[in-house]
Amino acid sequence: MRREWITLNAAITAAASAVGGKEADGPLGDLFDLRDGSDRFGKDTWEDAESEMQRLAFNVALSKRGVRDVDVGALFAGDLLNQCVGSSYGLLAFDTPFVGLYGACSTAAESLMLASLFVTHDIFPLCGAVTSSHYCSAERQFRTPVEYGAQRSPTAQWTVTGAGAFLTERAVRGGAHAVVTRAQIGRAIDMGVKDASNMGAAMAPAAADTLKRFFEGCGSRPEDYSLIVTGDLGFEGSAILGDLMRAEGYPLGARYTDCGCLIYERVRQDVHGGGSGCGCSATVLASHLLPKLCAGEWDRILFLGTGAMMSPDSLKQGKGIAGIAHLLEIVSPRYFKEKEENEWTS
Amino acid sequence: MRREWITLNAAITAAASAVGGKEADGPLGDLFDLRDGSDRFGKDTWEDAESEMQRLAFNVALSKRGVRDVDVGALFAGDLLNQCVGSSYGLLAFDTPFVGLYGACSTAAESLMLASLFVTHDIFPLCGAVTSSHYCSAERQFRTPVEYGAQRSPTAQWTVTGAGAFLTERAVRGGAHAVVTRAQIGRAIDMGVKDASNMGAAMAPAAADTLKRFFEGCGSRPEDYSLIVTGDLGFEGSAILGDLMRAEGYPLGARYTDCGCLIYERVRQDVHGGGSGCGCSATVLASHLLPKLCAGEWDRILFLGTGAMMSPDSLKQGKGIAGIAHLLEIVSPRYFKEKEENEWTS
Repeated sequence: MRREWITLNAAITAAASAVGGKEADGPLGDLFDLRDGSDRFGKDTWEDAESEMQRLAFNVALSKRGVRDVDVGALFAGDLLNQCVGSSYGLLAFDTPFVGLYGACSTAAESLMLASLFVTHDIFPLCGAVTSSHYCSAERQFRTPVEYGAQRSPTAQWTVTGAGAFLTERAVRGGAHAVVTRAQIGRAIDMGVKDASNMGAAMAPAAADTLKRFFEGCGSRPEDYSLIVTGDLGFEGSAILGDLMRAEGYPLGARYTDCGCLIYERVRQDVHGGGSGCGCSATVLASHLLPKLCAGEWDRILFLGTGAMMSPDSLKQGKGIAGIAHLLEIVSPRYFKEKEENEWTS
Repeated sequence: MRREWITLNAAITAAASAVGGKEADGPLGDLFDLRDGSDRFGKDTWEDAESEMQRLAFNVALSKRGVRDVDVGALFAGDLLNQCVGSSYGLLAFDTPFVGLYGACSTAAESLMLASLFVTHDIFPLCGAVTSSHYCSAERQFRTPVEYGAQRSPTAQWTVTGAGAFLTERAVRGGAHAVVTRAQIGRAIDMGVKDASNMGAAMAPAAADTLKRFFEGCGSRPEDYSLIVTGDLGFEGSAILGDLMRAEGYPLGARYTDCGCLIYERVRQDVHGGGSGCGCSATVLASHLLPKLCAGEWDRILFLGTGAMMSPDSLKQGKGIAGIAHLLEIVSPRYFKEKEENEWTS
């Protein structure tokens, strides 16, 4: 059998997030770096607002690390808009080589995986990853403009208005940052779900596939991790993933959660299926998961970006929604130090 | 100054192409692996036809090399359709980890760069890259459905109906395949061109930027290469690139050409500005450039994928068209062997 997981050695040396009003009002609201209650970020269109969030988030990440755009060897970025214009326009202001990605909502993990791989192999000393989504631009593009006031189905997810930015550098012994240590690239899987208001169900089988292959390949189990967190399966999809993994003999238990379940208060904020969008997993990772890893609250987590690879046109043409999930293993600075010391003494 | 180019060591061990009728009727017609004069590839929609071309091209590449989909560690793929559904549906049939990319028409070079990088650093022994475009799906999405019979402007380019697939493996001494030896990631550049019927003008400054930075960084000059070929600047854009590079002190001369100028006969086939689309550079590389490199007709070439990072909506919102160009240096087996021997003896 081919070896499928990738060994990485990349510290996430800066992370930043910019979000809209609903996210600022949610349980993680105080943790985000930038918040704009109007969701507009000073721009005239929702699309420009999304681009502006990317620009702002990357700018904050650069200044947190005290580096400039010209120091970044390559910037991996993507979003949900047609032709990924959120990224291409949002990051135009920076003098940085640009690698455009499209993995739907899995792009947060995909971009961080490539940014980690490039520094692990010393291709560049410093790389960046930026992803975003915007509720209003996504609704207009994938369903109907928000102004139409369409009724939402119970399983419909709420696209997060937010952008997350990360900087990666080769991990050094005794560093203070969380470290990406392994990755597994997902396979596109289409189980025939055709309901664009139930993306969680479409993506859960892909997340189960990636997790199962990772556990089998590495010989590890859910119990080896402090936390297993998917990107945006939401309440519906994460329940399905729980069932699938139990059936596979890898019950995830209480250590499992989903960024789409963390970012909003389900009932008070009336979000139906929970949060979604690559801005969902990117901002939760930047604001909530990485700080807790650095604080030593968790030792080792699995972070899965989950994406639904469909277009509104493909659904009209009767196609199913193909899901994909890319996995990153991220460890705390303390865990990384102990692991390095064990490897040196053994 | 940051080092910008990337050292690679990846043999392209298989290449395959599938094209439509107009491409089959062009000057390179006999060189493509698969041709369907109807442009439908047995499918009911143009979008499905595009996906089918990707599936067929990748299948041919696998069988040329005598390997299976499960042997491929990662597949890098993209296309021009919204949410890149050409790739995600086209490659669903394969049991291969999937990395979705979006670089507009530069995706052919972008995917081959990443597939080369992954094998150079022994992340996987075998990787793949697949890209496509389809005239009818692209016209419908970016301009108007072909059935409307819209008038084409003189600078409008003809999106190539075609898919190209490549397999990469770490280059070995004395191999029989062309070798990717260097790459340079492009920057997104927006010079304010807003005419969707003149993509060549929008992309040419990005190609000039990448070329100039590569020459400056490596200390090389146009004269060091047997051929410099851009992806799809077409007749208009390639003339602009020639002017820009002359002004920068790097005249490209007669060694410069463009895949969009090679794939059709300009007057007889009535293609106005020439060919475009990531299927353009991918199929010309697979069918024409790589075989000539392997035959020793050229020693060392620069292949630039060029892309226009805009969406129809962004144009309606008054944005410019951001261009990008990713560069690959590809050498003949003989050149690679001599270079390796020189490095061993020096």
